Amino acid sequence: LPSKLPYVGTTIFTVMSKLATDEGAYNLSQGFPSFDCSPKLSELVCHYLKNGYNQYAPMSGAPVFRESIAEKTADVYGISYNPETEVTVTSGATEAIFCAVTAVVYPGDEVIVLEPAYDSYVPAIDLNGGVPVFVTLDAPDFKIDWEKVKAKISPKTKAILINTPHNPVGTVFSKEDLDCLAEIIRGKDIYIISDEVYEHIVFDGEVHHSMMTHPELKERSFICNSVGKTYHVTGWKIGYCLAPAALTKEFRRIHQYITFCTVSPMQFALADFLKLPEHYEALSDFYQRKRDRFNEALKASRFTFKPSKGSFFQIVSYEKITDEYDYDLAIRLTKEIKVASVPVSVFYKDKKDDKLLRFCFAKDDDILDKAAELLCKL
Amino acid sequence: LPSKLPYVGTTIFTVMSKLATDEGAYNLSQGFPSFDCSPKLSELVCHYLKNGYNQYAPMSGAPVFRESIAEKTADVYGISYNPETEVTVTSGATEAIFCAVTAVVYPGDEVIVLEPAYDSYVPAIDLNGGVPVFVTLDAPDFKIDWEKVKAKISPKTKAILINTPHNPVGTVFSKEDLDCLAEIIRGKDIYIISDEVYEHIVFDGEVHHSMMTHPELKERSFICNSVGKTYHVTGWKIGYCLAPAALTKEFRRIHQYITFCTVSPMQFALADFLKLPEHYEALSDFYQRKRDRFNEALKASRFTFKPSKGSFFQIVSYEKITDEYDYDLAIRLTKEIKVASVPVSVFYKDKKDDKLLRFCFAKDDDILDKAAELLCKL
Ligand SMILES: CSCCC(=O)C(=O)O
Ligand SMILES: CSCCC(=O)C(=O)O
Repeated sequence: LPSKLPYVGTTIFTVMSKLATDEGAYNLSQGFPSFDCSPKLSELVCHYLKNGYNQYAPMSGAPVFRESIAEKTADVYGISYNPETEVTVTSGATEAIFCAVTAVVYPGDEVIVLEPAYDSYVPAIDLNGGVPVFVTLDAPDFKIDWEKVKAKISPKTKAILINTPHNPVGTVFSKEDLDCLAEIIRGKDIYIISDEVYEHIVFDGEVHHSMMTHPELKERSFICNSVGKTYHVTGWKIGYCLAPAALTKEFRRIHQYITFCTVSPMQFALADFLKLPEHYEALSDFYQRKRDRFNEALKASRFTFKPSKGSFFQIVSYEKITDEYDYDLAIRLTKEIKVASVPVSVFYKDKKDDKLLRFCFAKDDDILDKAAELLCKL
Repeated sequence: LPSKLPYVGTTIFTVMSKLATDEGAYNLSQGFPSFDCSPKLSELVCHYLKNGYNQYAPMSGAPVFRESIAEKTADVYGISYNPETEVTVTSGATEAIFCAVTAVVYPGDEVIVLEPAYDSYVPAIDLNGGVPVFVTLDAPDFKIDWEKVKAKISPKTKAILINTPHNPVGTVFSKEDLDCLAEIIRGKDIYIISDEVYEHIVFDGEVHHSMMTHPELKERSFICNSVGKTYHVTGWKIGYCLAPAALTKEFRRIHQYITFCTVSPMQFALADFLKLPEHYEALSDFYQRKRDRFNEALKASRFTFKPSKGSFFQIVSYEKITDEYDYDLAIRLTKEIKVASVPVSVFYKDKKDDKLLRFCFAKDDDILDKAAELLCKL
């Protein structure tokens, strides 16, 4: 059987999480919390599970859940989406991104991707016959150079795939970034596919500027989101897409034949739970304390780093320590020092090695303390 | 925004289920049970929900669940699949079918589809640039004419999409059907994508012959399945694909970027629950009683029909009653007689109208009794 994605091996997240388990290492690799969701939330799911909410949800999502998503979005950003025609529930943000890419990308179309990039973006483009065109975010600041983006725009550019707060580098788009992006696409037939799953995890007074907050961008954007990172339920695989009605119409035509609909009892539970704001309002502080705790302890190490601005990832440079390939180092650290990380080269199509590792700090404090202590030995 | 699937309107299942609710009609349209899953099963999910099983499952599925699937498959068919390399958990059979089609179909490839066909098959082919080639199953027996299939094979044929027991017509493949299919693909580079979600619902002593039971077919088959229909949990959207390691390897490369993984606590609960055979062994009898009850009551009507051989659907002809277009009749029956069905024309690309309606009998007995009584008024 020939392959449509010949470059794809076992995902780094599987490789590292498995190695961490096998080696009894602290797992700061894959992006998921070591702690559980609110007991209120699991209690709500049990309630719906035991009361007959186990058959198909509607294709676009349970209406009460779509309404809750729209209400929460309006509360947070002051922007309204129509739950009937502009909100679609998906089986994770990954499915939302795949559907959005599939909705707009035709064979030969170019899609701008900012690298390092989450590993599902390029395969989604490839599977649709699109051509990824890369712009690099450079260390140590990982800021977006919009002149570089502009230079890559061609008559074939069909979409720009962005991610803010950014996994893995933690960059958060500023208001100016949105203006630059709007200027670049103005008058052009270019769509924005925006991955905003870390919307509630920003630090040092940063503000998450969703694409929806810029009217010109909102009109062209598929905003892909998830409840996994906000409510500590990455394993429920519940995401959603916010997009203007015309875009949502095509998005749903695709979604209908990819998964049709998403796990039902969780949707009803979340419909209730999303009405409680405390669960996301405290999140940035919660994770900032973890970032600071981890980074403070790492000061005794030989790694160099700038604190992450958002997401639950911290990038560190090891160029002063060793010049091993980052993948080899990540494996070695897991085996010898018993701390698992993700080598940043995996987020580049050409596996560019900038001597960077990514640590996930969505972990209990004692895990962070222990892991940092071990890392200081290097 | 132009459309990749311009022919797709709101799915009939959404249209009819919504109309049934709005009209207070008995809903025999969309294929889901009116009754709940075993309390043991929801209890198990609650257990895992409350004990920290809320983060990402592995990409290919929780190992314990893949093992349970492999064990159950071996128990039922005496065929072994390696849970490590040949079993992949998906977000419903719909995702499994989409991934299998995407794994093998390249632009210009032809895929044989037996019509009437479940509505996701053709869009999955279209989204991959494939060309569906149709062979019709004709009323009243809906048997497969393998000579017709053979005549449609060309050097471009890349796959055959089949479904047994068949939705909507209830045909069940015989051992001879499998032999014919094997003969047709022998020596050719043709894959089988087999939708077997009604595997445990067969009547009148029929036996479900899975593609895996024929060694030549097994080697070429992606067998797409689901727990939804067997365990009365259509809303959990948990499916899986069984395929030889080489096929699974490519299948997972696709799945990894479509949904990555599937809802976690249900997988652990099902891993335990699948070990209890009584839950599927009794299923054919359970649904045969419902089919018989519904059909018996319909004898007083002017519909004509042959009893369904498998699945939880009964097809009836209304050609002796009216010559309305089936879609119009289904709408009218929902509004006037208060019974919702699915018009069979929706399962044809060209919306062929054979004056047939599909009723789902996965409903409580009193619903079936009431619905049949109302239908006798026509
Ligand atoms: C879907 S597994 C990957 C989780 C994640 O978002 C990450 O680690 O970057
Ligand atoms: C995924 S909704 C359709 C349910 C079903 O299998 C059917 O009604 O045919």
